[in-house]
Amino acid sequence: MTHFFSSDFKLGILGGGQLGKMMLYDTRKFDIQTYVMDANPEAPSKLACNHFEVGSLMDYDKVMAFGKKVDLLTFEIESVNVKALEDLEALGKKVYPSADTLKKIQNKAVQKTFYHSNQIPTAKFEIFSNLTALKKAVSEENISLPFVWKSSTGGYDGKGVSVVKSEKAISELPDVECIAEDLVDFKTEIAVIVSRSVSGEIKTYPVVEMEFHPEANQVEYVLCPARINENVTNKARDLAQKVSSKFEHVGLLAVEMFVTKTDDVLVNEVAPRPHNSGHFSIEGSFTNQFEQHLRAILDLPLGSTESKTNSVMVNLVGDENHTGDVIYEGIEKIMAMPGVTPHIYGKRETRPFRKMGHVNVIHSELSEARAIAETVKSKIKVISKKS
Amino acid sequence: MTHFFSSDFKLGILGGGQLGKMMLYDTRKFDIQTYVMDANPEAPSKLACNHFEVGSLMDYDKVMAFGKKVDLLTFEIESVNVKALEDLEALGKKVYPSADTLKKIQNKAVQKTFYHSNQIPTAKFEIFSNLTALKKAVSEENISLPFVWKSSTGGYDGKGVSVVKSEKAISELPDVECIAEDLVDFKTEIAVIVSRSVSGEIKTYPVVEMEFHPEANQVEYVLCPARINENVTNKARDLAQKVSSKFEHVGLLAVEMFVTKTDDVLVNEVAPRPHNSGHFSIEGSFTNQFEQHLRAILDLPLGSTESKTNSVMVNLVGDENHTGDVIYEGIEKIMAMPGVTPHIYGKRETRPFRKMGHVNVIHSELSEARAIAETVKSKIKVISKKS
Repeated sequence: MTHFFSSDFKLGILGGGQLGKMMLYDTRKFDIQTYVMDANPEAPSKLACNHFEVGSLMDYDKVMAFGKKVDLLTFEIESVNVKALEDLEALGKKVYPSADTLKKIQNKAVQKTFYHSNQIPTAKFEIFSNLTALKKAVSEENISLPFVWKSSTGGYDGKGVSVVKSEKAISELPDVECIAEDLVDFKTEIAVIVSRSVSGEIKTYPVVEMEFHPEANQVEYVLCPARINENVTNKARDLAQKVSSKFEHVGLLAVEMFVTKTDDVLVNEVAPRPHNSGHFSIEGSFTNQFEQHLRAILDLPLGSTESKTNSVMVNLVGDENHTGDVIYEGIEKIMAMPGVTPHIYGKRETRPFRKMGHVNVIHSELSEARAIAETVKSKIKVISKKS
Repeated sequence: MTHFFSSDFKLGILGGGQLGKMMLYDTRKFDIQTYVMDANPEAPSKLACNHFEVGSLMDYDKVMAFGKKVDLLTFEIESVNVKALEDLEALGKKVYPSADTLKKIQNKAVQKTFYHSNQIPTAKFEIFSNLTALKKAVSEENISLPFVWKSSTGGYDGKGVSVVKSEKAISELPDVECIAEDLVDFKTEIAVIVSRSVSGEIKTYPVVEMEFHPEANQVEYVLCPARINENVTNKARDLAQKVSSKFEHVGLLAVEMFVTKTDDVLVNEVAPRPHNSGHFSIEGSFTNQFEQHLRAILDLPLGSTESKTNSVMVNLVGDENHTGDVIYEGIEKIMAMPGVTPHIYGKRETRPFRKMGHVNVIHSELSEARAIAETVKSKIKVISKKS
């Protein structure tokens, strides 16, 4: 059998952002050799991997050359050259999640079609090859306002997504392939992280609740567990498992869902990697999501996904009025609060709404954790140094 | 005020072993710039620090040059050139724990004398400047057999310590300054980790119980909390705090103690750094010991030392019959057990009784955790690769 720990085995990670960085803590804990590639020479993952190289993840030749150096390839971001992953697989290289899974997820039109073909409940949608086609459908009243516009590719953190309320707003959209989706009248947004190993062992984390920042369209708080009834909880976990199985996904799959006013659960979108909605697990769970991803792709037994305690995660994003060298003002104040742990991603420069870190709050009472999280949010400011 | 997170502030760590490596995970979490020096070019800490350099920690010039590069200096091992630390302090450099504290602890004769002068209960002892003086005392029956011999300097992990039962055994001891200590008829060995910040804030971790391997004289299991009564618990915590205050210690101080058959608590020895008896805290505590050490030396508020759940730590040491490239045989089996997390230190080569890693077992029931720990021990073998 393969020995991963303190051996010659090499794990490659495409992408060197905060998700890769946090995954690397666990590779160190297991002493697995790691190779990381990222376009940014100062990527947060640069430290803590064995070998770091600079290269665009969309560059076919770079990804091929990188993939050939390692025994197993994974990624921490979806914007990866899939053709290269396919060709590496054809050469016998292990790639988890697979190129096929990533391909289905990378393009939102393909992803939505996949749900439709597999009887996975999701908001109604239509695909348009360009802006002209979309405009035509609206003017012919095949699509009615308001609707959710999503670019088929390249969306991330609220980019590439827009709620369209007027015909005028349509003209301001980029001319790309897109989908127009029914605006779901949901009461809660939830997520479930499913872990699935190469051998097919499956474990799901508890259903979490995501509270969004009203302006930035970014998740502000993640609560574990979600404040929903048992019926919805079970429905959400079953649905997330179904999605994972249908994708034949290996690794972590974060399944984001809407709970409608009638307690229906609809899949919004998925991410085939560790996810913001799973950061609570670092302090809150028996096995954190990054360790679990490693266990899944290395085909080790999955760890327990039970919670040690309830938790709330707060995203730390750059203040909207600041750009420049970052200061975490008030961080000593939040560190004095019991059960509060800041996680700083290692980005030197702050920008409005840039994800700079997160704070986990653990407490035996969820409502207490949620209250502390709000205090944390009010006491810490991610701003730039005064010059 | 000083900004530590994603800033130009530089923390220097003398020593690059597993303790430094685990401390570095938390510097990464906070994005603190780190400089590490170790004599071994392949030290486990090499990954995960910003700057690594090779150098002996006992070399005055090396330590001075290294210390001048950083804003604050700490260490993960006691064998450091103290003269250099003193001179760095004289130049205004912050060194935590201080040179003075380390000096009192580094030499066991000085350490024991310190306890004596400060009314800290400890086993009775006498100091001898060399082997001849010790032999003379035994032959003149000022010292009676059996007794515990300890080298004043250089002891570590059961080295430099010996239980002397016969006059013949004395001749086999090295000719160095030493102490002869009464053999304490103890029922339990316990430890308390005290954290004390620059400002003097103090928090103690729960009292833990150490179970020793009968042959290797190494800790095999650490149980949190210790299975002792409340009276002894309180006595031990108070005593540990007193020791920390008397040393005016900054950072973590691991205080190892004996519980005698009459429930007296005696200080055995201390370590001014993160310690094996605190590894349970990684999965078990609200704040792990490494993060707490950083908080203390950076004068940030200390974190909660409460436990999330009960835990038992198992040391993973090299099998006594194996030397060479390491394999962790059976590690998949232990990873399938819920609440079991292996921590591998990153040493490529195993040797008999070498500390190669540890495994944390968490469970709401301590007795269950202890039982699982024994299963872990029986299922995993730290052996060398068959060639």
